Amino acid sequence: GAALGAGSLAFGLLAVRCLRRSAKACQVNPGIQKDCDKVVHSMETTDLGNKTAFCRCWRSQKFPMCDGTHNTYNQEYGDNVGPLIITQQSSS
Amino acid sequence: GAALGAGSLAFGLLAVRCLRRSAKACQVNPGIQKDCDKVVHSMETTDLGNKTAFCRCWRSQKFPMCDGTHNTYNQEYGDNVGPLIITQQSSS
Ligand code: FES
Ligand code: FES
Repeated sequence: GAALGAGSLAFGLLAVRCLRRSAKACQVNPGIQKDCDKVVHSMETTDLGNKTAFCRCWRSQKFPMCDGTHNTYNQEYGDNVGPLIITQQSSS
Repeated sequence: GAALGAGSLAFGLLAVRCLRRSAKACQVNPGIQKDCDKVVHSMETTDLGNKTAFCRCWRSQKFPMCDGTHNTYNQEYGDNVGPLIITQQSSS
């Protein structure tokens, strides 16, 4: 009766909070340049070393470079994302 | 009374479903090579054109290349992700 109603109401409030948060929580990018409409990076190959790893998990402290944080993120979310690696011959 | 209880119960079921789904729904990568432990791409600059856009939203049909789908995704999720663009001098 009353107990069931109260319990269900609590669940209901949880549902509303969950639904409200889910849109934002499900963003690919949780925190990088959120004041910017679209985060695009443009790089010249002449500015890159022989091997450069670029972040695709949006959690790197060195974004747009990968710093390995994808491993922690993957473990926490059961995901399988990894970097894009660009290699080039030494110009020497 | 009964109506309130039923309504709250419905909300409660919604909450459970929402919480169950949220972990998976919040993955950065919803569908690319999910059979793979970690999706890493390695590219040689010699295989790239003068300007190549790489996807960082994990929604491109041409992954690892960007096909513009980030715009649809950003609009739907209120997010602000965009590609990594690699440019290089023409080798000619
Ligand atoms: S830290 Fe983001 S892909 Fe490696
Ligand atoms: S389609 Fe994914 S970043 Fe453009």
